[in-house]
Amino acid sequence: MAATIPASHADLLRREKKAFAALALVSSKGLPHVTPMWFDFDGEHVIFNTARGRVKDRILSKHPTVALVVTDPANPYRYIQIQGPVVFESEEGDYAQIADLNLKYHGNRDYPKRPGEVRITYKVRPEHVTTMG
Amino acid sequence: MAATIPASHADLLRREKKAFAALALVSSKGLPHVTPMWFDFDGEHVIFNTARGRVKDRILSKHPTVALVVTDPANPYRYIQIQGPVVFESEEGDYAQIADLNLKYHGNRDYPKRPGEVRITYKVRPEHVTTMG
Repeated sequence: MAATIPASHADLLRREKKAFAALALVSSKGLPHVTPMWFDFDGEHVIFNTARGRVKDRILSKHPTVALVVTDPANPYRYIQIQGPVVFESEEGDYAQIADLNLKYHGNRDYPKRPGEVRITYKVRPEHVTTMG
Repeated sequence: MAATIPASHADLLRREKKAFAALALVSSKGLPHVTPMWFDFDGEHVIFNTARGRVKDRILSKHPTVALVVTDPANPYRYIQIQGPVVFESEEGDYAQIADLNLKYHGNRDYPKRPGEVRITYKVRPEHVTTMG
């Protein structure tokens, strides 16, 4: 069951805000792991992109539930917390999705291709959403 | 074995920076949980404060390992990630430690006392430290 994003905090997920997410995962040893990440939101899913073989990819292949918090860059006391499962993972689209993120954060789609690197797109369905501020 | 905080990123932990931490925990169901938090650093431990009975307190009593990331408020691509166990938990000091945090973030020690609220101080020993930017 997907949770609704409250209108009061929906701006934090929009591209114009250029906010980062702190993405929390649980490692195979059961330990917490948290990283600042670029993200996108398609109105339904929170979307991430990483490279095949990185820590995040290795963790998510075994433990596909994430939590994230997006804080208003202009107000650290205003944020949205989202928890939910990864419901989609694909190598399709190749660099198109990371180029979308590059556009959001840097204003252009010129994300550098690295030889041999395979990009993966993850989509998270929000199941629990809380807001502050 | 405590990890060293690299000099290149030690400023992020200093009070003058007023940076927040994104604190990640693992719930009793094995799910990730992440919250923006005030924190302090005593040169050895990352220090948090919460109220007895809150989600963080309930989780930490069962699963006392945390991960956190502190991002430079002036540069989202510069951050330090710290993972480690809670090595100290105490109700002693009552409001003194949260007043210290209030001083760091608001410039005064006037943190409001709430009737019946018990504040807890947690100290985390950094075991794994990585930096970016």
